[in-house]
Amino acid sequence: MAGSSYGTIFRITTWGESHGKGVGVVVDGCPAGISLCEEDIQKYLNRRKPGQSAFSTPRKEDDVVEILSGVFEGKTTGTPISLVVMNTSQRSHDYSEIASYYRPGHADYTFDMKYGFRDYRGGGRSSGRETIGRVAGGAIAAKVLEELGITVCAYTKSIGEFTVKSENFNLDARDTNPLYMPDEKTAKEAEEYLNTIRENTDSAGGVAECIVKGLPAGIGEPVFEKLDANLSKALVSIGAVKAFEIGDGINVCTSLGSDNNDCFYFDGNGISKETNHAGGTLGGISDGSDLVMRAYIKPTPSIFKTQNTVNKSNENISINIKGRHDPIIVPRAVVVVETMVALTVLDMMLINMSSNIENIKKVYNN
Amino acid sequence: MAGSSYGTIFRITTWGESHGKGVGVVVDGCPAGISLCEEDIQKYLNRRKPGQSAFSTPRKEDDVVEILSGVFEGKTTGTPISLVVMNTSQRSHDYSEIASYYRPGHADYTFDMKYGFRDYRGGGRSSGRETIGRVAGGAIAAKVLEELGITVCAYTKSIGEFTVKSENFNLDARDTNPLYMPDEKTAKEAEEYLNTIRENTDSAGGVAECIVKGLPAGIGEPVFEKLDANLSKALVSIGAVKAFEIGDGINVCTSLGSDNNDCFYFDGNGISKETNHAGGTLGGISDGSDLVMRAYIKPTPSIFKTQNTVNKSNENISINIKGRHDPIIVPRAVVVVETMVALTVLDMMLINMSSNIENIKKVYNN
Amino acid sequence: MAGSSYGTIFRITTWGESHGKGVGVVVDGCPAGISLCEEDIQKYLNRRKPGQSAFSTPRKEDDVVEILSGVFEGKTTGTPISLVVMNTSQRSHDYSEIASYYRPGHADYTFDMKYGFRDYRGGGRSSGRETIGRVAGGAIAAKVLEELGITVCAYTKSIGEFTVKSENFNLDARDTNPLYMPDEKTAKEAEEYLNTIRENTDSAGGVAECIVKGLPAGIGEPVFEKLDANLSKALVSIGAVKAFEIGDGINVCTSLGSDNNDCFYFDGNGISKETNHAGGTLGGISDGSDLVMRAYIKPTPSIFKTQNTVNKSNENISINIKGRHDPIIVPRAVVVVETMVALTVLDMMLINMSSNIENIKKVYNN
Amino acid sequence: MAGSSYGTIFRITTWGESHGKGVGVVVDGCPAGISLCEEDIQKYLNRRKPGQSAFSTPRKEDDVVEILSGVFEGKTTGTPISLVVMNTSQRSHDYSEIASYYRPGHADYTFDMKYGFRDYRGGGRSSGRETIGRVAGGAIAAKVLEELGITVCAYTKSIGEFTVKSENFNLDARDTNPLYMPDEKTAKEAEEYLNTIRENTDSAGGVAECIVKGLPAGIGEPVFEKLDANLSKALVSIGAVKAFEIGDGINVCTSLGSDNNDCFYFDGNGISKETNHAGGTLGGISDGSDLVMRAYIKPTPSIFKTQNTVNKSNENISINIKGRHDPIIVPRAVVVVETMVALTVLDMMLINMSSNIENIKKVYNN
Repeated sequence: MAGSSYGTIFRITTWGESHGKGVGVVVDGCPAGISLCEEDIQKYLNRRKPGQSAFSTPRKEDDVVEILSGVFEGKTTGTPISLVVMNTSQRSHDYSEIASYYRPGHADYTFDMKYGFRDYRGGGRSSGRETIGRVAGGAIAAKVLEELGITVCAYTKSIGEFTVKSENFNLDARDTNPLYMPDEKTAKEAEEYLNTIRENTDSAGGVAECIVKGLPAGIGEPVFEKLDANLSKALVSIGAVKAFEIGDGINVCTSLGSDNNDCFYFDGNGISKETNHAGGTLGGISDGSDLVMRAYIKPTPSIFKTQNTVNKSNENISINIKGRHDPIIVPRAVVVVETMVALTVLDMMLINMSSNIENIKKVYNN
Repeated sequence: MAGSSYGTIFRITTWGESHGKGVGVVVDGCPAGISLCEEDIQKYLNRRKPGQSAFSTPRKEDDVVEILSGVFEGKTTGTPISLVVMNTSQRSHDYSEIASYYRPGHADYTFDMKYGFRDYRGGGRSSGRETIGRVAGGAIAAKVLEELGITVCAYTKSIGEFTVKSENFNLDARDTNPLYMPDEKTAKEAEEYLNTIRENTDSAGGVAECIVKGLPAGIGEPVFEKLDANLSKALVSIGAVKAFEIGDGINVCTSLGSDNNDCFYFDGNGISKETNHAGGTLGGISDGSDLVMRAYIKPTPSIFKTQNTVNKSNENISINIKGRHDPIIVPRAVVVVETMVALTVLDMMLINMSSNIENIKKVYNN
Repeated sequence: MAGSSYGTIFRITTWGESHGKGVGVVVDGCPAGISLCEEDIQKYLNRRKPGQSAFSTPRKEDDVVEILSGVFEGKTTGTPISLVVMNTSQRSHDYSEIASYYRPGHADYTFDMKYGFRDYRGGGRSSGRETIGRVAGGAIAAKVLEELGITVCAYTKSIGEFTVKSENFNLDARDTNPLYMPDEKTAKEAEEYLNTIRENTDSAGGVAECIVKGLPAGIGEPVFEKLDANLSKALVSIGAVKAFEIGDGINVCTSLGSDNNDCFYFDGNGISKETNHAGGTLGGISDGSDLVMRAYIKPTPSIFKTQNTVNKSNENISINIKGRHDPIIVPRAVVVVETMVALTVLDMMLINMSSNIENIKKVYNN
Repeated sequence: MAGSSYGTIFRITTWGESHGKGVGVVVDGCPAGISLCEEDIQKYLNRRKPGQSAFSTPRKEDDVVEILSGVFEGKTTGTPISLVVMNTSQRSHDYSEIASYYRPGHADYTFDMKYGFRDYRGGGRSSGRETIGRVAGGAIAAKVLEELGITVCAYTKSIGEFTVKSENFNLDARDTNPLYMPDEKTAKEAEEYLNTIRENTDSAGGVAECIVKGLPAGIGEPVFEKLDANLSKALVSIGAVKAFEIGDGINVCTSLGSDNNDCFYFDGNGISKETNHAGGTLGGISDGSDLVMRAYIKPTPSIFKTQNTVNKSNENISINIKGRHDPIIVPRAVVVVETMVALTVLDMMLINMSSNIENIKKVYNN
């Protein structure tokens, strides 16, 4: 089934396996007239590159993107933009053993059940390298949103028990620590925690948070295609994400209506809300406040401890995974979260354009 | 935009407003040959009917479903099944005042921003009555799943701080208390809590949990159409849901890889997992364990306390909402959660049928 | 599979069988703010009603449409519009015999092969009554197009060998003869031909032509979603249509490039073409000329001559179909062609809105 | 808008411009377990290559395909197959002049109207090179169909007035003459005709016919997604196709019901039809007969005669197109027709798998 595409009007289709010839994405439905060069995309890819710190795998993957179509004289033409990143650093021999058994926490078993067999090299299609296509496509979505005055920003909110403190929050700090945490002090503590985890051949989880600023009210569809429903799918579709929250999220279950409702007021220029418990949507449609959402990410399933599992001969065995693996996924997932949100928000903005006849007349009757 | 449809192969399209002539759904893509009568659907609708207890609105809505097409001699024909529930109990005069202002926590403001105006009677399309179409369509999905040996079951997990205790868990109890809680003792405590809330003209939130049993391994698509990603969209698309979890959910952020990984073992007949932290999916594909997921639901936004808001003349005003409203959404949302999960699981099973050539040959080469 | 929907942004979903309780359509994605009442739709349905002339079946079907949702205070709200036409005149006993055999030229056999059985009453879902939903939905599309200055007009071009002559062409005449031919003289000749056909218990075929005026240049997508490709699907999806042409159609195969190319010229105000062999599209995108297309429609398969076929016991038998049937489909199909074109053109206009950043800014940056 | 994808379950997404870095396709939804190597695809691409005869452009385009993903150890894995053909032989200087004006019969003007500007080099995205992605993707569809015993075969039916005669029909001859005509005698006559056309600096049109053998009855959806409707869209989406016919096509308009109906008979093994006027579908669903359809293709718009048009300064000018162009499109379009039909038929077979509960149980309850 054609499940490798995301989006309705602005749609990406990703392809590629960890140890195949490359990975890539076709971006279809990008509006014409957007300035675009490879550097616009590369800077996003660089944020998910491995080998940037002690907490990401020491594999050196250059991940250099090339634009193969859809851009002419520096501008998008409206036709599909094909982006490719060739695989250069993959060492297949590291992975040959895993062909014979099912790694706990990985998709080895489920791929075999679905397809009858699998490309076992480095996780194949279920590898984290699959996200390169998302990030490359989402970088273009972010570029279009920028033209409309909208910014999307994600960061590491928590690693284990270590959570960014609002009093220390400093977005500039995000890009200066290897954990992408906008709080230098907490980042330091989290680094120590991760060092301990890694020494203990274990792995840790955490939370990525994403904020969208500048989104006008009225974006999103009222029933199945709610803005928050699509954001939820966007984030849970990222491997390792096990929960999604918007606004107050799980805390609404113990809140009261009188606390949870955000009251409206007129500030002289427009309508605002006194609070933002909702996280920026009402009835699935943006309300003009910041969108605020979180993705909860499980610990890296590749750990270096002995684990029990089953091999292809249905024997119960003990295994020790080898190779190069991050002790935490969150910091490299931040840019994936950010770009998936950008893709979703832009697509819903384009979908919304025809919601009333006045908008249609703005385009056709001028 | 066409946002009122859900599903790819088994697809429902819902319609209807709270105070229009009726609400309904067209179920397209239902396989031929399923026994179906109105009672199969009615029993699901009865579970979301108001007026069943002190905690649901005293409005009497009969919500009688009629099948208009797609069934012949007691069996589905494979062509679209049109279901309609006429509105009978709606009192428009209760709602006329809300035309002039924006209720906090409701979609009044966002509908106006999107469409230019709104059907303000009883929430119009954003009313809880919108879910009738989902439940009616999902009842049919559940009937098809039953033919394949798969059951979907949801219940109230928490109301406020009151959470079902695993030692008291008794699914039979679910249908004998008005809160749909499978734990009589906790249900009693929650009822007292809700009585206090209601006397205080406030409202409460809670959690619905859903379990799918009997799903074979191998269902779900590996990238954007992950089974869990679609379940997440399904549940967050229900009005008032602000968070989604699968398996250990948010707790994975503080877990370790060695605790969170579910080890495989061969039990003599097939491959199982020692634990189910994952909640039944690996890499977005079912692993043969139970699917376990939760939806976090906000307190009813309609409360009878005085609230601040803005009217259509951009004046800051205080309002007191009148009418008949539940002090809690969760118990009536349980069946909506259950049917949205049924729709999603069935659709992904149908999508998966062509995942490998052996399956295709089973259908075409014998 | 969900094959009862048509359109991407402006999408209709039809349902209903010939002898079930009714037929209908849900129109999803209609922009808010369009004036709409039942009469707007009824006048289109009346054009396909049977019993209007000697050449359409004497069944009296009132086909009264009711709007169940999506319209408030006389205007579309942007939410789904549910339209229903209850079946009132169906006589099931006329059709009981056909349960046992496969009528030539009908879908009886193919439905059984696909679904395992069929609703055999009056053709069930493959009845011409299926088009009521298309016409009702398309009437709304035509209403939206009208707001944008675009008109869609279809008529009978040919019946058998009798073809409208360009020197007699008079669109006003279309609605004053029972064959919907815009040429009174040819219509008279065609009537005589049909009388002979009918007396001979046979049936005839013909051609419907459709012209779209006022469509701006630039509508349509360049590769798979070409405007003409979608128009082709729209018309061939109508039962009994066996060929589609745009512009010069089949005649291009014997033309020369120097004759077939339409030269551009500037007329002082804008760019026009000296000729319109292309029928209004270049590279799948509208060029600002009239769209001109034709659907070739087969003779009614229900004829009163003895025919050979097979029954359910695999016996070769001779049959004589009974019942009430038109000797020609074309006149009643004209409005189906017209509304399918309206649906297609409107949907592609809405799809096109985001084709370049300037259009997007018109909607969001003012 | 995302218009570069084709298919629902077996879906291709094409990209690339005539003079960009390359062209390609992502094939998503291909079932796992199909043997596949580059040669399987290359042999189809070779059939559309230019430079093969006097009647195709002398440009030498090697068009070598490379598989970048989705195949492991010689078999499809079920994940997206990315295919790329790098552009090697494009000479941009040949095309620079056309930046300033609109060529008659081409999409230059409509692209500018839609997108605001265009990649003018060699037609950009509207170039015939766009079909490379279709052919490469369709070659894989044909490979899957082969596993199911289904063959798709297209050929040149007519060039100008020269039409293959049924008494001379010899499919083996198709691949031995440069016009892909299965009739050597007519091919010779057509070659002489084309020589005259070319000497006269003009171009010619023609007809491609396609036959599908082995398709079981029951494939196709009864309303909008009729098999013939989708075939029609498939073929009219090919640039230069101006008409589509299935079975008797346009001739049905002058036929009688008694001639046009195909009578059924039981032949001892199964149900067949005495004739095949319908071309293999009834009610949009395959009836077990051969599918027979035709595409009518206009003369190459690039001719070397002086033509009138308009330049970017809105001046009426005369132009003489330069470059290398085929005097006829049909022979190279044959393989495009064949592969578009393969894509459509396979997709509809996969869509049909869930049409009744018995098929579903074959896959899940074995």
